[in-house]
Amino acid sequence: MVTVSGQNTAVEMAGRFKQIVGESYVLADDESRNHYGHDETEQLLYLPDVVIKPRTAAEISAIMKICNEHRIPVTPRGAGTGLSGGALPHLGGVLLSTERLNTILNIDERNLQVTTEPGVITEVLQNAVKAKGLFYPPDPSSRGSCFIGGNIAENSGGPKAVKYGVVKDYVLNLEVVLPNGEIIWTGANVLKNSTGYNLTQLIVGSEGTLGIVTKIVLKLIPLPAHDLLMLVPFKSLEKAGEAVSAIFRAGFIPSGLELVEIDALKIVSEMVDSHVVAVSDDIEAHLLIEVDGNNPDVLMQEIEAIATLLQQFDAGEILFADDAQQKAELWKLRRRVAEAVKLAGYTIEEDTVVPRAELPALIRGVKKLGKEHNFHAVCYGHAGDGNLHVRIKKEGTANSLEDADMIESLRALFKLVYQLGGTISGEHGIGLIQKSYMDIVFAQENLTLMRSIKKAFDPNNILNAGKIFDMK
Amino acid sequence: MVTVSGQNTAVEMAGRFKQIVGESYVLADDESRNHYGHDETEQLLYLPDVVIKPRTAAEISAIMKICNEHRIPVTPRGAGTGLSGGALPHLGGVLLSTERLNTILNIDERNLQVTTEPGVITEVLQNAVKAKGLFYPPDPSSRGSCFIGGNIAENSGGPKAVKYGVVKDYVLNLEVVLPNGEIIWTGANVLKNSTGYNLTQLIVGSEGTLGIVTKIVLKLIPLPAHDLLMLVPFKSLEKAGEAVSAIFRAGFIPSGLELVEIDALKIVSEMVDSHVVAVSDDIEAHLLIEVDGNNPDVLMQEIEAIATLLQQFDAGEILFADDAQQKAELWKLRRRVAEAVKLAGYTIEEDTVVPRAELPALIRGVKKLGKEHNFHAVCYGHAGDGNLHVRIKKEGTANSLEDADMIESLRALFKLVYQLGGTISGEHGIGLIQKSYMDIVFAQENLTLMRSIKKAFDPNNILNAGKIFDMK
Repeated sequence: MVTVSGQNTAVEMAGRFKQIVGESYVLADDESRNHYGHDETEQLLYLPDVVIKPRTAAEISAIMKICNEHRIPVTPRGAGTGLSGGALPHLGGVLLSTERLNTILNIDERNLQVTTEPGVITEVLQNAVKAKGLFYPPDPSSRGSCFIGGNIAENSGGPKAVKYGVVKDYVLNLEVVLPNGEIIWTGANVLKNSTGYNLTQLIVGSEGTLGIVTKIVLKLIPLPAHDLLMLVPFKSLEKAGEAVSAIFRAGFIPSGLELVEIDALKIVSEMVDSHVVAVSDDIEAHLLIEVDGNNPDVLMQEIEAIATLLQQFDAGEILFADDAQQKAELWKLRRRVAEAVKLAGYTIEEDTVVPRAELPALIRGVKKLGKEHNFHAVCYGHAGDGNLHVRIKKEGTANSLEDADMIESLRALFKLVYQLGGTISGEHGIGLIQKSYMDIVFAQENLTLMRSIKKAFDPNNILNAGKIFDMK
Repeated sequence: MVTVSGQNTAVEMAGRFKQIVGESYVLADDESRNHYGHDETEQLLYLPDVVIKPRTAAEISAIMKICNEHRIPVTPRGAGTGLSGGALPHLGGVLLSTERLNTILNIDERNLQVTTEPGVITEVLQNAVKAKGLFYPPDPSSRGSCFIGGNIAENSGGPKAVKYGVVKDYVLNLEVVLPNGEIIWTGANVLKNSTGYNLTQLIVGSEGTLGIVTKIVLKLIPLPAHDLLMLVPFKSLEKAGEAVSAIFRAGFIPSGLELVEIDALKIVSEMVDSHVVAVSDDIEAHLLIEVDGNNPDVLMQEIEAIATLLQQFDAGEILFADDAQQKAELWKLRRRVAEAVKLAGYTIEEDTVVPRAELPALIRGVKKLGKEHNFHAVCYGHAGDGNLHVRIKKEGTANSLEDADMIESLRALFKLVYQLGGTISGEHGIGLIQKSYMDIVFAQENLTLMRSIKKAFDPNNILNAGKIFDMK
């Protein structure tokens, strides 16, 4: 169990917090507490006692010093688009929003780097560097609303990860406020670094439990000039999965390789009222395949070669996106699947990842589990990475935390994932709602090491305590 | 200061070690102790008390349990090609060689992964996957002799890093024997992972101070079918540096972008008796530029476009490598620079890294320091990454550890590197010989965190103690 407490103390300290950040940026009204009491995770609500909106690392440092001294729980929050409950203030205390640290500080065109604050929306950052012919590839589906800081916390991915890697592959250096209020830079603004333990990589994906990121230095690459997109239906899920492996074995590295199972496609097509994809009964899944690069002729050869290859796997009629509008419509369908299935009652979300060739086995396993455990599941995700999002609907079950049968189902799911060589989360993090399954994929010794690291950074266990794992 | 001791104990325990690994794999003769008492770092020699050559993780676990119980210092060693003294047994005790863990366990063609033991020579591993059309890009200059395990320990790079990244970008999962003898897997065999703290990335580059890697799962990519290479002379170092930045800004990502300063080129040309490159007095540096991909026509267009671009930067007559043999000769020149300058008396080696546009300023600064501090320096390295190797020759100074004036010079060098936004080591690690400069680039708080992490993994400070930093 977590050892923090002191909810009342947070309220008592409100005056001191106001001295630090200004009167109007410390909130304790019901509306604010409600707004910051939930994120995009299932239907969960935990009210913070006080919401604070600092503007600078120095202000965050001053806040942390008070909270550390008085053992007040602090939950850092980006845009609140998280899916594992990382930003839920389940212990009350202080909710620390990074929304006002929202400036892109410097786009360094000589070195292809950007320095930004964490509260910048990912798509805003992408567009700012794009305007200079540069490219920051990681693009979670929520990129239009999520913050780059949250992406660092969760080590986010998105469709482009298959070619370009995930957030961790672009983070060069971080300014971090530690739980004791000290401010450090984790590394240096360089492309290669073998100088001491990699604190930068330790912070990436640590879900706001080790420190609060206040400045971010990211690597950029030249923006590819062209891309092509096609949507490919498959009669068999297995064949779709085999096709994914075959594409790489043939030497292609698509810039997107997404799978949408037919049930998910039906739901999203209905929601966005799109008829761009004909949904027919003999199709089990679609692959959305993008290639990018600088030479349009080469790209055309590439996508045609992939299309030819796919005929070996019983692919149906391929839809090539003709123009920018059709590309946008296909990507919109893919990006809005999560929202659509959530509206359709699929409120429990898992973020499994397996070696890519095991994807068909995983999807079959999910369906089988659903029958045994009496739930419906739809699957979609980043097939090229083996990263499958599983959305679950079960009558009468609003969330995955309080239903014993659901918990048992998820244990069975994660055991299957582990057997297939995979793990619990590919890009959403563990947060609050997956932490009780960590023992399935990690030995006790791993968890002991993780707890020791947490203790080294946060001896009083005040920062996002009870996320990823409980302290013993 | 380090707190370990017990050199005599290692000898006393030799009988128990022999029970574990067999009589012939525990050595304490002078020849063995001498052989394993040095690596490629300067001219340093520290004799271990006992050399042990285990075959399995289980054997290493049993050895570590004894050493942990009796507080015997253990220095793990790969091929001994390190340049920062990471494998030097400076505290005596046990030298643990991984040379017998030398099997490639599985090349997974469906998932594009390889599982290997650490004692496999990097080039052997590269060739094994190449035979299946797959590519493991990180290729240190020493790839013909270094071990993949040592590459993990140092987070090695090499010429291809500029396009393909360094070792850390390919490591998916590691089996590690901890100092207490426990054996863990750090992660999962997946391309994306957001499940708990990233222990995998923490082990990569930790220089054998946190655990001994016994199995390695690496990501592979499709092997590009073609490459082209050219060597470009520049009259001015600044112009060469500007050209490097301009190449990326124009949208090109070369698969190699190396800089060799003229002094280094002269030395290596003489050593290998090569006349492929005409060395003339009006040239300050050369860039070696490689592009790779699957379409030879596109590559030709690309390299011609780069060549045209370079004319803006006062490039001299470009040498295009005509065939495989000429390519090999150019790469040999580059790869053997380190060996050549060492033979020429440049025994002190530094591995600085700065944002790539700062490379000319760094090289000028090195030369200026040389004049002020009375040493000669030659520079070469991975210009695309801003990673510059600086080799130093100073009359009467055999190594960098015992000469007060040399230590002062290096402090000045690393301060310059830090001012330019860089850090001490890009790919060689800190090891024994750079640890006293860590305070230049890190705040005290960073070092405190690193020591806490070390303590979490190795509470008795027995594993490669006194490397990277001393415990307080």
